[in-house]
Amino acid sequence: MSEECIENPERIQIDGDSIKHRNQVNLKELINPNKGDNSALLILNQKIDIPKQLFYKVWELHDLKICADGAANRLYDYVKDDESIRIKYLPDYIIGDLDSLSEKVFNYYKEKNVVIIRQTTQYSTDFTKCVNLISLHFNSPKFHSLISNKNAQFNHGIELEEGIHTLYNSMTESLAFSEVTPISLLALGGIGGRFDQTIHSITQLYTLSKEASYFKLCYITVTDLIFLINKNGTLIKYNPQFRNSCIGNCGLLPIGEATVIKETRGLKWDVKNWPTSVVNGRVSSSNRFVGKECCFIDTEDDIILNVEIFVDKLINFL
Amino acid sequence: MSEECIENPERIQIDGDSIKHRNQVNLKELINPNKGDNSALLILNQKIDIPKQLFYKVWELHDLKICADGAANRLYDYVKDDESIRIKYLPDYIIGDLDSLSEKVFNYYKEKNVVIIRQTTQYSTDFTKCVNLISLHFNSPKFHSLISNKNAQFNHGIELEEGIHTLYNSMTESLAFSEVTPISLLALGGIGGRFDQTIHSITQLYTLSKEASYFKLCYITVTDLIFLINKNGTLIKYNPQFRNSCIGNCGLLPIGEATVIKETRGLKWDVKNWPTSVVNGRVSSSNRFVGKECCFIDTEDDIILNVEIFVDKLINFL
Repeated sequence: MSEECIENPERIQIDGDSIKHRNQVNLKELINPNKGDNSALLILNQKIDIPKQLFYKVWELHDLKICADGAANRLYDYVKDDESIRIKYLPDYIIGDLDSLSEKVFNYYKEKNVVIIRQTTQYSTDFTKCVNLISLHFNSPKFHSLISNKNAQFNHGIELEEGIHTLYNSMTESLAFSEVTPISLLALGGIGGRFDQTIHSITQLYTLSKEASYFKLCYITVTDLIFLINKNGTLIKYNPQFRNSCIGNCGLLPIGEATVIKETRGLKWDVKNWPTSVVNGRVSSSNRFVGKECCFIDTEDDIILNVEIFVDKLINFL
Repeated sequence: MSEECIENPERIQIDGDSIKHRNQVNLKELINPNKGDNSALLILNQKIDIPKQLFYKVWELHDLKICADGAANRLYDYVKDDESIRIKYLPDYIIGDLDSLSEKVFNYYKEKNVVIIRQTTQYSTDFTKCVNLISLHFNSPKFHSLISNKNAQFNHGIELEEGIHTLYNSMTESLAFSEVTPISLLALGGIGGRFDQTIHSITQLYTLSKEASYFKLCYITVTDLIFLINKNGTLIKYNPQFRNSCIGNCGLLPIGEATVIKETRGLKWDVKNWPTSVVNGRVSSSNRFVGKECCFIDTEDDIILNVEIFVDKLINFL
C-alpha cells in the first residue's frame, strides 16, 4: 500500500466509537487520574518549573508523592521561605543513594516522618528505584509490614544496597499483572535536563509498557505531556474546550526504532502507511490534533507521543 | 563474542595513537572551531539560557551568525535594555516564515541591515531553512550575487515560498561534497524546548551526517554538548584540564535505532559487544570519560553522544 499524507481543516469530526481500537487514552486523565486508578506523582531531581498553582493542584490529585533523591531539595526550595506551605507538601517517600540530598533537607523531612529510604546500588537509576517502590507501596503487604515495624528504624528495615529491588523482584513472582490496579504515574523533572537522563526517561516508557504495563506513565514538563502510544490502534480522547485552550502542537516520535504509522485520523497532517524514522529524518513533528473530541493513531510498533500543553491554562480544567 | 562491561578507575591512560580509528572529534573544537573550518552559530527559537560571558565568547568564535525566525526576538531580548550591547551582536541572517518574529524586532534588525529572508513553505522546518542558507552562504557565489543586488530589495531577491531550497538544491547538483570546506555548526536552542522539536533536532544530526557531511553539527545547552558519533571508530580528544574542569557525565544514546557498541576505551564503564537499545531499556547513560586525554568509541551504527558541560567553567578554556 502506498503512503499518503493529507492536510485537514483545523477542526474535523472523528467518530471514535466506530474506529476499532485496542487502547484508549484520555488526555486529561494523564494529569487528573481516573478515580479507579491508584496514582502517584514522581518528582525527579531537576528544578521544578511548572507554575505553583498547577503544581499544588497536581499534588492534590495524586494519592502518593515520591521524591527521587535530590528532588527533595527541589521540593524544599520550591516554596522558598514559606514554611506554612512547605509543611503542607510533604512527600510520602524519598529514595535514592541520597548523595545529592542536602543534610538540611534530609533532617527537615526526617523530622516530619517522611519515609526516607537509602539504596546505594549503582546498577539502577533513581527512576527505577522509585518505580519499584511505587509498585511495592500499592501492591506489597510485606513491604508495608517492614516499614511500619517501629523496631526497624534503620533504613526502615530495607536492606541498604538494593533491598527495594529484592522486595520488588520477590513480589513480581507472585503478582498477576493483569489483576493489578492500574497506577497513573505522572513524572515531573524527567525530561529537559541532562540529555542522557532525558533519554533514560524515554526508555522507561518502553520498559514499563513491557514489564509493568499496569503503570500508565506520563511526563509533564513546562511545555509538554510525553507518553507512549501502544501499537495496533489508540484512540486519544479529550474535551473540545480543553483541547482548544490547553493543547498546542504534537509529535509522533519513533525514538528507539523506525516504524510505520499505519494510519492516523484527526491530525492536521493525517498519514497512512507512512514509514517514520529518526535516522532517516522522517518524523511527524509540529503536527496537531484537529479531531474535535478525539483522534486515532495506529502504528506498527509502540511510539512516543508528545503533546504541547499551555501550563498556565491547564489549571482551569483540572 | 560475548558482551563485557568493566568499571575503570577515575583516570586511565589511553594511547589514542595506537587505536585504529576512522573519525576524530576534539571536544573543544565543537565550541571553539578549528581555524581551518568555516563556522556558524545557529540560534533557534528558544530562550537563550547560557551565561552571557559564554554566549558572547561563542558568538565571537564563529564566522557567521544566524537566527531562525523568532530566535531574533530571543537575541533582542537577551540583552534587556542595553542598546550598546545589542548593537554589537547583530546576526548575519534571520530566516523563517517570520510569523513568530515581532514587528519591533523585525524593524530593528532591518534598520541595521541584517539580511532578513522570508520563506513560507510549511514542508521544511526553520532548522532546515537555516542549514541550507548556511551552506549557500559559504559555497554559492550565485546566492551572494542575488542578495548583494541592490535592485532586488524584495526578500533580497529570494523567492518567497522556497527560494532558499531551490537555490540549495541547484547548488548541491554541482557541489563535490568531499571538496567543500567543513562547516563547524554550533546550534543553540534546539534541545530542551518542545519535545518534538528536540527530537527533530536530533534527526538533523543523522540527516546532515548523511546528506551534507561537511557540516559538523553540535548542539549546546545549559547542561550538554550533543553530537553524532560516526560508526566504525571515533577518537574523542580533550585537554586533561578542560576535561577535569568542564566535563561531567556522558551518555551513548542509540536514538533512532538499536545498535551494538563494539568497543569503548576510556569510559568509566567500558563495554565490548554491548547491544544497546532505547526500546529494550539498555542505554549507557550517566557514564563519563576517564581516559586522561582521549577516549574511543566504536559502534556498528552512528550513535548520539551527549557530554555534560559546566557552562560557568567553560569560558576559562575558550
